[in-house]
Amino acid sequence: MAKILMEKDIQFEKVAWGLTKELVNYQTVGARKVKVKITEYLPGHEHKNHVHPGQEEVLFVLSGIGMTQTREEKRKIGPGSVIFIGAGEPHTTWNLSDVESLRVIVIKAPPEDEEVQL
Amino acid sequence: MAKILMEKDIQFEKVAWGLTKELVNYQTVGARKVKVKITEYLPGHEHKNHVHPGQEEVLFVLSGIGMTQTREEKRKIGPGSVIFIGAGEPHTTWNLSDVESLRVIVIKAPPEDEEVQL
Repeated sequence: MAKILMEKDIQFEKVAWGLTKELVNYQTVGARKVKVKITEYLPGHEHKNHVHPGQEEVLFVLSGIGMTQTREEKRKIGPGSVIFIGAGEPHTTWNLSDVESLRVIVIKAPPEDEEVQL
Repeated sequence: MAKILMEKDIQFEKVAWGLTKELVNYQTVGARKVKVKITEYLPGHEHKNHVHPGQEEVLFVLSGIGMTQTREEKRKIGPGSVIFIGAGEPHTTWNLSDVESLRVIVIKAPPEDEEVQL
């Protein structure tokens, strides 16, 4: 299967740290090996420290400014930042702006895993 | 392992259809389940019809204008377009502009596969 869609045609859903929408998953396009989302961390919001035990995650920052903390480092992120989180690696991401969303592409492989809060 | 990098710190390499750089792979960050690249299809260039027999691919268009042809459809793509190509699905992408690169994020899972020209 192949499918072409526009991200703006997909609706956001609310999560604790902002808004998210799933662009690529099994339901939308039949993907079995990867999930792709857009997430907006709202001003003042944080996705608290957690792990995905068996899943790799990549964040690609489209706009905004934030911070990511991993076991190794705590670093400011902005447009063009690429964050790789290996399976089982604790990580936290938050928005540093009072006014602008931190907008990122979120990539997960495999597509489904649990999220364990720390 | 977790790692944060800036895409602008990674050098482009030349390919037949333009420029590409690997942001996330086993060598750069230890990824085993996913690869993430940025590719620029140069004006007038085309990535000719091909398949990845066992690999899913997602393109997310950052800027520029182009066309993607799959077995099901032939559609104009631009910023915010999301293209999902299932394993074994033939696909072609080309730049429609005479002046601007078609800049996309390329996601592949699993990270390695062959490319079979059609």
